[in-house]
Amino acid sequence: MTRPPAEPGDRLDRIDTPALLLDLDAFDSNLERLDRALEGANVSVRPHAKSHKCPEIARIQVSRGAVGICCQKLSEAEVMAQHGITDILICNQIVTPQKIERLCQLSLDIKVSVLVDDEANIELLDEISREHQCTLDVLVELNVGSNRCGVNSPESALTLAKRITDSTNLRFTGLHAYQGAAQHSRTFNERKSSIDHAALIAKKTQELLQKNSIPCNYITGAGTGTFELEAASNIYTEIQPGSYIFMDADYQKNLNQLGNPINEFKNSLFVLASVISHTTPGRPIVDAGLKSLAVDSGMPRVFEDSATYISASDEHGVLTTKVSESFPIGSKVRLIPGHCDPTVNLYDWIVCVRNDQVTNIWPVSARGASL
Amino acid sequence: MTRPPAEPGDRLDRIDTPALLLDLDAFDSNLERLDRALEGANVSVRPHAKSHKCPEIARIQVSRGAVGICCQKLSEAEVMAQHGITDILICNQIVTPQKIERLCQLSLDIKVSVLVDDEANIELLDEISREHQCTLDVLVELNVGSNRCGVNSPESALTLAKRITDSTNLRFTGLHAYQGAAQHSRTFNERKSSIDHAALIAKKTQELLQKNSIPCNYITGAGTGTFELEAASNIYTEIQPGSYIFMDADYQKNLNQLGNPINEFKNSLFVLASVISHTTPGRPIVDAGLKSLAVDSGMPRVFEDSATYISASDEHGVLTTKVSESFPIGSKVRLIPGHCDPTVNLYDWIVCVRNDQVTNIWPVSARGASL
Repeated sequence: MTRPPAEPGDRLDRIDTPALLLDLDAFDSNLERLDRALEGANVSVRPHAKSHKCPEIARIQVSRGAVGICCQKLSEAEVMAQHGITDILICNQIVTPQKIERLCQLSLDIKVSVLVDDEANIELLDEISREHQCTLDVLVELNVGSNRCGVNSPESALTLAKRITDSTNLRFTGLHAYQGAAQHSRTFNERKSSIDHAALIAKKTQELLQKNSIPCNYITGAGTGTFELEAASNIYTEIQPGSYIFMDADYQKNLNQLGNPINEFKNSLFVLASVISHTTPGRPIVDAGLKSLAVDSGMPRVFEDSATYISASDEHGVLTTKVSESFPIGSKVRLIPGHCDPTVNLYDWIVCVRNDQVTNIWPVSARGASL
Repeated sequence: MTRPPAEPGDRLDRIDTPALLLDLDAFDSNLERLDRALEGANVSVRPHAKSHKCPEIARIQVSRGAVGICCQKLSEAEVMAQHGITDILICNQIVTPQKIERLCQLSLDIKVSVLVDDEANIELLDEISREHQCTLDVLVELNVGSNRCGVNSPESALTLAKRITDSTNLRFTGLHAYQGAAQHSRTFNERKSSIDHAALIAKKTQELLQKNSIPCNYITGAGTGTFELEAASNIYTEIQPGSYIFMDADYQKNLNQLGNPINEFKNSLFVLASVISHTTPGRPIVDAGLKSLAVDSGMPRVFEDSATYISASDEHGVLTTKVSESFPIGSKVRLIPGHCDPTVNLYDWIVCVRNDQVTNIWPVSARGASL
């Protein structure tokens, strides 16, 4: 565990850099905005904790009415359970005997659900659950357009659901229908068309299951880019937004129905960096590079908009600016990560700030929990 | 700290995934290859520890004759010093009072050097060193073509060197002339031309300093892509290769003098992943994505060459293959990271393997040490 970059009470300019900063006013506003967006919608909220990996944030989400959280990995779920979260959906397949044994252990402590898309995997889950005398909640994952995991037809889903209902130690609880590829489709119409298609597949599958006497009242999916569409679909019963609490530079390139960049959620997450070198006017160098910022979705955006982050090496970032005098050595810069989730995963601490003063330091307890 | 993915004695198929794997035979071969490449050359070796962040590897490098190590960040150096490394060059600027105070503390325990490229920074270093009653070793960083940090002319270097020699608590020790941009230039001629240019700038600066009665017998730089050029330059006195111990997919795109991919160093570092889903023949999905692999230099390469890793999301990787039957659910895949350094930074543990059996688990003690 690395040292924390600040202490509660520190002013912004005392924070050591690079540091992961959470602006609590913007964070609160994002939490409220989600609630408002869902007023009148008949869906549960199960935020995805892979975005923050921080039990403190998960607890806040649950205290505001979330039915539980999603995790992407078993070890992430184990950390969240250790910190008091009692209802976790692992949005992934758990396939090796070692991991299934850990999953069984976890199911004795909390309500945990897992996805399947393979018959042999179902058999293995059933067999190991029997040995551990536990019952696992299992959802069938549908490929609704992302072409990643998930079965490719309602008939395949039926085969798996039957296999689950025929098992001794598994409980069929519903369908997982997450359209990940749609989250970052830029136009509203593209996203709408993708989610309509996803919802149709989920509906057809649900009908086929019910025709075969397998009740299916739980259909979960959705992310920050599309959740309002799933919430209005009358098919999905639960949504899983993650990034809405932070927002990142990539999500903000999505356009709304009017063709304008979406602006409902605010940037609350920043990498605070310092200028460490500025030998060529107009080209300040900051101390945050590839080990402090995920660049898979593009370079970070400089919050102040008076500079552009043009390239990253391991521990350096190169900016260009027309106002050199604003970037003397030692000055601080707020960077909006291109992609929040893998950026958070680089840090052990979230430095919470209100009115430019540190209020809390939250551990990213599930940082690196990929097993 | 996350759980280790294996124990010594485990066979490859028992290792939990995703895991960072070090093939010790290939690692040993790379260490020997560096020694052979430098036979007869008159340069010291100071490997860059930013590639591995692992004290055990630093100790092995020093035990083989390295004069010390490079670190990219102060906190990285602090970790290495805690683990017994006694001579560290921080290849970076340390500009804030807080960090300079820590640097002074560190200088009381080990030999530590730091780079400068700014006069006010030199004054601050001198002032705080005086308060701490320590003497800091300082190198002037030259911009030799990377256009990142470093002064842009021999005259500017002279100004800084004079300021250092005039200070009370700083010692001018030499020049830092690292040409980072050249490391990944694909053709030999491009790399040769870049390093010739870098060496010329270093030489001119050295001559100007000596003309002004400032001795300068220490010129350091070079990386895995170019170190043989610096070693043969008669200008550089020290080289700083880092990636040579591991190699990554990007470095292996460099071509040698004959136009063939370089193959002197072997791939020793892998991300071991498992197939977790395979519902569409030819498209296996593995459990290693953006949080297990840095993709800034491209997608990882599948070591077995029977599949291609085509896209990554947070915790998933999508492969394509013509031999679906080789990738059943639960099967293991070795991935060669596109870029080793930021990939290592995602892991707490390096799982050392010889003959497909785990021999050691080395902690990546400086993982996340970016402060």
